[in-house]
Amino acid sequence: MAATRRRLAPEERRRHLIETALHVFARQRYDETELEDVASEAGVQRPLIYHYFPGGKKALYLAVVEHAWQLLVEQLDTSGDDPPAQRLPQNLSRYLDLIETDDAALAVVRQARRLEDPDVVAVIENASALVAAGMAHNQLRDDAPSAVVLAGLRAFIGWFDVVLDQWQAGLLTRAQVEALVAETLPAVAGAAVRADGA
Amino acid sequence: MAATRRRLAPEERRRHLIETALHVFARQRYDETELEDVASEAGVQRPLIYHYFPGGKKALYLAVVEHAWQLLVEQLDTSGDDPPAQRLPQNLSRYLDLIETDDAALAVVRQARRLEDPDVVAVIENASALVAAGMAHNQLRDDAPSAVVLAGLRAFIGWFDVVLDQWQAGLLTRAQVEALVAETLPAVAGAAVRADGA
Repeated sequence: MAATRRRLAPEERRRHLIETALHVFARQRYDETELEDVASEAGVQRPLIYHYFPGGKKALYLAVVEHAWQLLVEQLDTSGDDPPAQRLPQNLSRYLDLIETDDAALAVVRQARRLEDPDVVAVIENASALVAAGMAHNQLRDDAPSAVVLAGLRAFIGWFDVVLDQWQAGLLTRAQVEALVAETLPAVAGAAVRADGA
Repeated sequence: MAATRRRLAPEERRRHLIETALHVFARQRYDETELEDVASEAGVQRPLIYHYFPGGKKALYLAVVEHAWQLLVEQLDTSGDDPPAQRLPQNLSRYLDLIETDDAALAVVRQARRLEDPDVVAVIENASALVAAGMAHNQLRDDAPSAVVLAGLRAFIGWFDVVLDQWQAGLLTRAQVEALVAETLPAVAGAAVRADGA
């Protein structure tokens, strides 16, 4: 362990701590997790974590949520040039795969959405705004959406979360989730455009 | 105080405790609230609360959430016989009024939706299913909606919550919220019907 630790450069060490913490936070709720859990899983002492994250558990968690978000963005294309009719089912299918395989990054981001801490909310709000902008581009070919259009599309994420909960509760099949999303996202986008002109 | 207490019949006393607790939980988060806060506001001793709610804070809270839900249902007509084109704006307008006046029942229900306790989740799930059934009746004249249609409509509540958050954050005007809902609810209902047939 000590040998491994010595070999890591600071950036690698920081990254290793974030990746280790990603898996800890994917398994355990934020409020149930102690910094000691991450330290022992990473094979380091707690003070080393404070060295890299002087803000402690909260600072480490924010870095983990941002990292998780980057991992998801890399896996889910939201800015390609295929027509939306092709892109939506592909992205959705990848997303549902990540849920079915208990992907750690997705678990962290979904859990983070439930927290009320202002700093966590800010990271999630920022990510949601980017997703909404991606949907405006894909669904509407609109790269400067109005506040109303953005709001309707951001709220689609809230719709989608409830549908996912119902899938995970066994009330819907995966095929039903895919059919619901394929029909509802364009409908919500169209409704937001009409509301904007109202 | 003692005189007042003696005059209340058990059912009245129980109701008084629930109504007092409603206002306490509307102001304070569940995890920040002590049974003592409710006892002192109600002018009673803690053991009296345990007499009516042997399960303590959790049991009292569940009774409060159910009571809050009943109060909302009484104020929001979801089963009238006006055409939906008239009913939706009326119900929505009343709901937004309740938010603007910091209505205690609505505050409790919205806060309860964020809790992960299984008993609270069960009460909220039950209420959400009733709302979805009301929307199926109003929007689609469908009194026996399929699982897919119900899921799409229940998820509309998730969409609506995000829109309300954005209104309360100052990103949307009330008129924009009303226009978004008026366009989006029928669109989501129609999409769910199409998904069901897919």
